[in-house]
Amino acid sequence: MKKPPLGILISGHGSNLQAIIDAIETGFLSAKIACVVSNKKEAYGLKRAEKHRIPTHVIRHQDYPSREAFEKALIQVFDPYKIELVILAGFMRVLTPQFIRHYPHRIMNIHPALLPSFPGVEAIQQAYDYGVKVTGVTVHLIDEGTDTGPIILQTTVPLKPDDTLESLTERVHAVEHKLYPQAIQLFAEERLEIQGRKVLIKDS
Amino acid sequence: MKKPPLGILISGHGSNLQAIIDAIETGFLSAKIACVVSNKKEAYGLKRAEKHRIPTHVIRHQDYPSREAFEKALIQVFDPYKIELVILAGFMRVLTPQFIRHYPHRIMNIHPALLPSFPGVEAIQQAYDYGVKVTGVTVHLIDEGTDTGPIILQTTVPLKPDDTLESLTERVHAVEHKLYPQAIQLFAEERLEIQGRKVLIKDS
Repeated sequence: MKKPPLGILISGHGSNLQAIIDAIETGFLSAKIACVVSNKKEAYGLKRAEKHRIPTHVIRHQDYPSREAFEKALIQVFDPYKIELVILAGFMRVLTPQFIRHYPHRIMNIHPALLPSFPGVEAIQQAYDYGVKVTGVTVHLIDEGTDTGPIILQTTVPLKPDDTLESLTERVHAVEHKLYPQAIQLFAEERLEIQGRKVLIKDS
Repeated sequence: MKKPPLGILISGHGSNLQAIIDAIETGFLSAKIACVVSNKKEAYGLKRAEKHRIPTHVIRHQDYPSREAFEKALIQVFDPYKIELVILAGFMRVLTPQFIRHYPHRIMNIHPALLPSFPGVEAIQQAYDYGVKVTGVTVHLIDEGTDTGPIILQTTVPLKPDDTLESLTERVHAVEHKLYPQAIQLFAEERLEIQGRKVLIKDS
C-alpha cells in the first residue's frame, strides 16, 4: 500500500493535525505527512509536528507582496516533497484560483458544520445561534468558492437540550478528529471518484 | 389530555395530511383535525379528509383580489373552529405577515431538507444535485422569511451510494410522515417553549 505524501497547512493550534498524526501512528491512516507549513511562526501546531519529527516551514504571508507571491512560496516548499494531497487544518488564509488549479481536486478541507449550512467562520456558533437540532462536520475538496467544493464525507452531531456553545464545540471537534483521517484514508486508497460536484466513494 | 383543534392547509396530494390522520387514528397523536382547507378544488388531499369525515373547504386564491383578501377568507373559515395550530401540508401559497401575526408561533411547516440548507422549492433535488452525504427533514414554525422560522425538530437522512433522486425522495417522505405528527404532539403536550429563534422542548 502506497502512502501518499501530505502537505499540511496550519495557522494555529493544529488539533486536526494532531488527529492525523495519531491516525498514522496507530495504523488507521496509510499516509505520510511530508511537511507542515504555517503562515504564523507562533502556531502551536508547529510544535506538535516537531515532536513527531515532521519537517516544518514558516511562510509568513506578510513577508510577500501579494497572495500570489505567498502561494508561489508555498508551492516551492511543497514541490520537493512531491505532495499529492494538501490538507487544510485550521489554515486561515483564502487560497487563490492559481493555487487551487495547481492542485486540482487535491486540496482537502474540514468544516465544522453540515455544508451548505453555515459556511465561513464561526460555523459552530452560527449553528448554535440559529437553533438547529442537528449540525455536523463536512470534509470537502476545495474549489474556487467559500466552502462550496465537492463533499467527501459528512457526519451529523445532534444538539442536546442542555448544550452550551462549549459542549457543542467539544463534540463537533471530536467528530472532526475522526472524520478527517477517514477522508484522507479514502484518498490514500484511491477510492474517491469525482463526478461533477459529487464525490463517489468506490467499493463502499 | 386536551386535543388542540388543527386547521390544515393543503394544495395537492396531502400525504402529510394522511400521516397526521393516521397518527391520530392510531392514538399516537392527541389532536383533532378541525378542518382541511385547500386553495385548489382538485387537491387529492380533500378526498382523504372526506373519507375520514373531516370538514373541508375550498378557498381558491384566484377568486380574491389580493393575498390579504384571500387570507382574510382563510381566517374567516378557521375562526369558528377555534383553530389553535395551523398546519401547512404542501400548501403552495406564500403567507403574508398579516396572516402570520394572526397566528403567532401557531403555524407549523415541514421542509424536506436540513434547514438552513436548501430552502425553497425542490429541496430534495437541490440536496441531491449538491452532492451532500446527509440530508433530512425539518419541522419549523413559520416566521416572515422563507423557511427561516424557529426549528422544532430535525431528522437526518443519509445518502446511499446508489441513491437516485427517486429513492432519496421516498426515504425523505417516509421520515416526514413520522416527524410531522411528533412535532404536533409536542405542541399538543404544551412542551414547546420558544426563546428567540430557538425552540426548547420541555421535559425531553
